Amino acid sequence: MGPVTYRRLMARFETAEAAIEALPEIARTGGRQAPPSVPSRREAAQEVERVQALGGRMVFAGDADYPPLLALLPDPPPALSILGDMAALRGRGVGVVGARNASANGQRMAEALATDLAAQELVVVSGLARGIDAAAHRGALHVGLTVAAVAGGLDQPYPPEHAGLQAEIAARGAVITEAPFGTAPQSRHFPRRNRLIAGLSLGLVVVEAAPRSGSLITARLAQEANREIFAVPGSPLDQRCRGTNDLIRQGAHLTESAEDVLANLPDDPRRLGLARAPLFAREHGQGFGDDIPLWDDPADTEIDIGAAQTNIMGLLSPSPTDLDDLVRRSGLPAAAVSAALMHLELALRVEFMPGNRVCRV
Amino acid sequence: MGPVTYRRLMARFETAEAAIEALPEIARTGGRQAPPSVPSRREAAQEVERVQALGGRMVFAGDADYPPLLALLPDPPPALSILGDMAALRGRGVGVVGARNASANGQRMAEALATDLAAQELVVVSGLARGIDAAAHRGALHVGLTVAAVAGGLDQPYPPEHAGLQAEIAARGAVITEAPFGTAPQSRHFPRRNRLIAGLSLGLVVVEAAPRSGSLITARLAQEANREIFAVPGSPLDQRCRGTNDLIRQGAHLTESAEDVLANLPDDPRRLGLARAPLFAREHGQGFGDDIPLWDDPADTEIDIGAAQTNIMGLLSPSPTDLDDLVRRSGLPAAAVSAALMHLELALRVEFMPGNRVCRV
Repeated sequence: MGPVTYRRLMARFETAEAAIEALPEIARTGGRQAPPSVPSRREAAQEVERVQALGGRMVFAGDADYPPLLALLPDPPPALSILGDMAALRGRGVGVVGARNASANGQRMAEALATDLAAQELVVVSGLARGIDAAAHRGALHVGLTVAAVAGGLDQPYPPEHAGLQAEIAARGAVITEAPFGTAPQSRHFPRRNRLIAGLSLGLVVVEAAPRSGSLITARLAQEANREIFAVPGSPLDQRCRGTNDLIRQGAHLTESAEDVLANLPDDPRRLGLARAPLFAREHGQGFGDDIPLWDDPADTEIDIGAAQTNIMGLLSPSPTDLDDLVRRSGLPAAAVSAALMHLELALRVEFMPGNRVCRV
Repeated sequence: MGPVTYRRLMARFETAEAAIEALPEIARTGGRQAPPSVPSRREAAQEVERVQALGGRMVFAGDADYPPLLALLPDPPPALSILGDMAALRGRGVGVVGARNASANGQRMAEALATDLAAQELVVVSGLARGIDAAAHRGALHVGLTVAAVAGGLDQPYPPEHAGLQAEIAARGAVITEAPFGTAPQSRHFPRRNRLIAGLSLGLVVVEAAPRSGSLITARLAQEANREIFAVPGSPLDQRCRGTNDLIRQGAHLTESAEDVLANLPDDPRRLGLARAPLFAREHGQGFGDDIPLWDDPADTEIDIGAAQTNIMGLLSPSPTDLDDLVRRSGLPAAAVSAALMHLELALRVEFMPGNRVCRV
């Protein structure tokens, strides 16, 4: 179950127990015969124990020590597994990300930026990947705190040659993931890792990025969460700079040094403003926390939920579709689309994607 | 005599003969005993003949074939010496300038940009210098027209190793200067050369430029003339990219290819809008051609021209001073400062500089 549906279920049923009890009926309305499998209490406890055995801990949405910048997201990850110093997740985070096949100069730039940012008490957040990510973590480790957001389980460092780096980061900062213990990272896990990087950061610096690369997706997620975007310019002759140059063209802060970042970061995370809710917020012109109905029980309304589902499934494809666009094309009220998608997600027929999009499974 | 004073004298006296006749009296009011030396009719004719002997010609402000983009300047150069094809000076010019000590990649970029721009019927304008300038001329020569604006006389190619390049440009485009025949270029001649590049261009592309370099002065002159500014981004680790990155930060179009330039050039030079007049236009909120008095004869007004001159000379130094600032600090009406400066210039006691500035001689 994705974080959007999680948030909606909790808003509707208030306790996890009540939500779990209601699931089979909701899934059935969504067109699924067998109820979705919910881990047992014992399985959940086992997950917590495994993380603890590794020296880590699990943190849940609503917990007092849930990372505050992540909590500002409209759909905060429900469960996090964390190794290391929880304090690192309460600091003023700055993401530093970029190409895996980075140039030597790009890596030097990322390392110097990270060192200078960490020296100013900022927490450098990155994704443990080869190239820019590793350079950023290493630059920060010398002088301050760094956080690695990873795609797989805490016991599955990736890439394997960064196992030592992950251990260093856990010892002097923190490693964080949404993935359950034992998850070997696959490409489909990276969008969530990218969302963690964006969500843990007041601003995101992209050092080298080719067009259509993962770092640009992270930048879009950060922008959607109202975080500041920074990009280091580079020669147009190098493909790895085309993405960052394009970010600057679109309004990212042109970044040559840590000063350029510091001058444009909000002092107080609350100044970020609330991110817009991922569902229908643009239409209503409201942010998360305003009184957009989080849940519309079909029984409470005039909506024919079955017809809405058929309508929506006809519009969706395996490529992600923008939710606003879906509402417009469906001709249905936003509340009807919202309710229908909820049932469809629990029936495993659709999947919510980062960036306010949904696709057919 | 500078172009500002030339324009004012012509506006006041209508014919060159009347202006020349009035000069001794004006200069005397400015505090100079001997009248300024005016070239004789014979000397002027000799200058024209020398340029013609080299295969070139002289063109004067107001002539039918005076370069139309230069004519849009608030203070068009009164006299130009030109070698080559006059048609090149009537085309849609684009300046391509940058560092003399350019990187190999910077030169490659300039050459490729110039080739692509020339292939689109644009005339590539540059300054014949080493590095970016030469690469831009060479890139354009393959496929279209290019114009070299130079600091010295037409018979004094500079740098000397570009004598062959200047000859090629004269054969397939044009070479243009404000300097009299025989002038060996010195550093004080380059601001006028830079103003020619800016004035002959609808837009100016800066490829590599260190902070406080001459290319940035050209960019400022182009901006003051309402021309579009383009800059190629580069690594912050290279000093030669700091100036261009800074231009982008200030609003220049980030430029990776000729398409970025073409997309942001006005189709019609008249869309440039009139450049603001170099004297006092900001204060009046008016452009050149509006009814700002071009000349205030002290006899016509209540102004004590002698006191104004003393006041102004006390405020000036050999470093250029902004004219608006001078008016503010003098406490005098703009018209009084304008009249006093005119007399002082003709007395060779002050000099007007590009960029709306004046200095003590």
